[in-house]
Amino acid sequence: MAEIAQDRAVRVAVLGCGTVGRALVGLLLDDAAGIAERSGVRLALVGVAVADPTKHRVGVPAELITGDAKVLVTDPEVDVVVELIGGLDPARELVEAALAAGKAVVTANKALVAAHGASLAATASAAGVDLLYEAAVAGAIPIIRPLRESLAGERVQRVTGIVNGTTNFILTLMAEEGVSYEDALGEAQRLGYAERDPSADVDGHDAAAKAAILAGLAFRCAVVGDDVPRQGIGAIPAADVASAARMGFVVKLLAVAELVADGALSVRVHPSLVPAAHPLASVRGAFNAVFVEGEACGELMLYGRGAGGMPTASAVLGDVIDAAHNRLSNSAAPAPPRGPARLLPPSEVRCPYYLSVEVADQPGVLAAVATAFGRHQVSIRSMEQDGLGEEARLIFLTHTARDGDVQATLAELADLPAVRRVGAVLRVVGVVDEPSAAAVDRPGGAGAVLA
Amino acid sequence: MAEIAQDRAVRVAVLGCGTVGRALVGLLLDDAAGIAERSGVRLALVGVAVADPTKHRVGVPAELITGDAKVLVTDPEVDVVVELIGGLDPARELVEAALAAGKAVVTANKALVAAHGASLAATASAAGVDLLYEAAVAGAIPIIRPLRESLAGERVQRVTGIVNGTTNFILTLMAEEGVSYEDALGEAQRLGYAERDPSADVDGHDAAAKAAILAGLAFRCAVVGDDVPRQGIGAIPAADVASAARMGFVVKLLAVAELVADGALSVRVHPSLVPAAHPLASVRGAFNAVFVEGEACGELMLYGRGAGGMPTASAVLGDVIDAAHNRLSNSAAPAPPRGPARLLPPSEVRCPYYLSVEVADQPGVLAAVATAFGRHQVSIRSMEQDGLGEEARLIFLTHTARDGDVQATLAELADLPAVRRVGAVLRVVGVVDEPSAAAVDRPGGAGAVLA
Repeated sequence: MAEIAQDRAVRVAVLGCGTVGRALVGLLLDDAAGIAERSGVRLALVGVAVADPTKHRVGVPAELITGDAKVLVTDPEVDVVVELIGGLDPARELVEAALAAGKAVVTANKALVAAHGASLAATASAAGVDLLYEAAVAGAIPIIRPLRESLAGERVQRVTGIVNGTTNFILTLMAEEGVSYEDALGEAQRLGYAERDPSADVDGHDAAAKAAILAGLAFRCAVVGDDVPRQGIGAIPAADVASAARMGFVVKLLAVAELVADGALSVRVHPSLVPAAHPLASVRGAFNAVFVEGEACGELMLYGRGAGGMPTASAVLGDVIDAAHNRLSNSAAPAPPRGPARLLPPSEVRCPYYLSVEVADQPGVLAAVATAFGRHQVSIRSMEQDGLGEEARLIFLTHTARDGDVQATLAELADLPAVRRVGAVLRVVGVVDEPSAAAVDRPGGAGAVLA
Repeated sequence: MAEIAQDRAVRVAVLGCGTVGRALVGLLLDDAAGIAERSGVRLALVGVAVADPTKHRVGVPAELITGDAKVLVTDPEVDVVVELIGGLDPARELVEAALAAGKAVVTANKALVAAHGASLAATASAAGVDLLYEAAVAGAIPIIRPLRESLAGERVQRVTGIVNGTTNFILTLMAEEGVSYEDALGEAQRLGYAERDPSADVDGHDAAAKAAILAGLAFRCAVVGDDVPRQGIGAIPAADVASAARMGFVVKLLAVAELVADGALSVRVHPSLVPAAHPLASVRGAFNAVFVEGEACGELMLYGRGAGGMPTASAVLGDVIDAAHNRLSNSAAPAPPRGPARLLPPSEVRCPYYLSVEVADQPGVLAAVATAFGRHQVSIRSMEQDGLGEEARLIFLTHTARDGDVQATLAELADLPAVRRVGAVLRVVGVVDEPSAAAVDRPGGAGAVLA
């Protein structure tokens, strides 16, 4: 214990005092001795910057509160700056100022890291200080550090994450209670899992930012959130969630980053059919999980709470301790250089699809629909009719197909007189698509077999 | 990239060239440029120590092979020593010599770390070098680093792991195929998952070593493998695996380390009933997973391949890169001091139990059995009879009970004339035991309600 006592306390400033900020301040103040004993470093909270310093905050001593974040991030008394303001502005400017002033920075700001992570990392690296952001993806789950350190030498092939708890809660409710998207969203809003304006979650913006961060780390390249094509969960009918379940699948909103042919990278967010036996299928409610596939490590999954004040503060605290250790030993976490990302155009991404097509229940419809698939080289693996008359839907599972071809098929289907509406379009992940003699259909043969 | 080129190569020596050693040597030699690009450090393999240097090893250049490990671990040309010999002797002596000579050491040796981890960590700390052992527990799964770094400040409450793939494979086969323990073991042996002498796995020795390592890290104390009481899976009848399934549970061999009242620690290995909806229940076959519960982080689970040459080599490689980074920056991973562990005596551990009692199928038996439970303050939550006549079994789920009381009950039951045999004794984990008015039974009332 002598070792600890000799080391000076590492001085921590916190920017922002919302849910996560209050939880972190609580841990730092109420459990200071425990943290020192467990971690071997003493942390001293020296300031909390807030927008309105006149507002009283329970549990935060008034003398620690300041309205001037800019002064705090360059204060010579500060070793580690924790940015919990969120958003791009003024967070970016404050983080840059802190790094330039030689402070280590810990942030939970996914939007900031997704948009400016590579340039901030370069600034940190040039200053010889840490920029750590474990809490920016999947809350309390250790995923950033494992990707950066444990898997530093690994040839990662694919990272697939349930990284948005709101949408996973909604989809779990739809699957388990059979309720509509609208009702599930209402329940999520009632419980505080979803915002009044839920678009950041349900349209996939949040997941896209996290996909960009995971892709950048796993593949050592610079990917920004705006590079990530996304499809939200708003258009998924309850009937398709139920159909997927009958076929042995669970619907999940996934962030996917994978190496494809030629070393190009595909990064994307979309609702997906996951086989019920896949580890990601058992991630229920507001939980998050990230599934990593690598050449040597095989399959890994890291699971836990993706949001909430305390879980997020826990991840921030781990980073603060890491930064404090590095501070005391005058080192910084390694930050391998990143190359530019070569991203596969979305139309070139290939996977099997689940497609639901609402049709007139009359002879010849299937032939017309199957002909459209065949014309665009989209091979059908299975088809089933669900419902009759006005409710008739054809549900297709395809073999692995090019997204551009699937979209062309859908456009053609939408123009067929017998097609009332194209319904859910969901990618199937986590299955090995090995066409065999038993396959229903192969490209070119679609019409012949099915019609 | 200039940064990498300026740094010198970090020189790595490997002791032992079995399955993991060969996999690691393959990665270091075949993917040297890729590892440097992804991790930012250049690694140079400078020697491989083996017992018989005259034996040809495919993929290992003859000029790297030596029979003299002792020379290699003190060679001034070596920066990082990787110990993959296994067992205590001569591994311990070689690791100590390497640390004393100022080398960073990476080991996958669970037996060594479980028996001498604290003293080796002290030696490493005194020498200012790394002792890293991610691969010693749960193969490729990042669990050591998350516990030591991500959760450095966390108040961990419980760590529950499926850390032995052999027994999980056997139990999965028993549950899913309905086969006997003997047949499942035979299949595991045929597939190479179990040794010809399977006792290290099936009797829980391997899991106990890993439980000690996890407990030491999670609770910052010194626990050795021999401190860990263990119960193996050999005595579990297929009928109880099936009964557990009917009740909504899966049987798993678990390593458990938890804080109990008064800050005492309980560390143990036993077959357990896990609720089917618990994340650990979905860990099938030879996979491993570690479930962590902490005050701030909530529930985390880390899942992946627990054994095998490449997955284990992947974890070793992550550690080697970490040690290499630290070497180049003249630092070492933080090693918080550890206090002595205050271990709860096994008889004081409390949890709900599943108990199977083979009885004569005659009136009055249940009263006699229930009286024995009541006398020892073991409260029954539910009871069902399975089978008739010669096959009759009573299956009890108890409320939370003290292990000493359960053992006393079982001893009394074994002496009852109507009891043919006490069968499976399995702990129930992952349930919140909240006695309510609906509970079948309370201490003292057992006989009255059930008889």
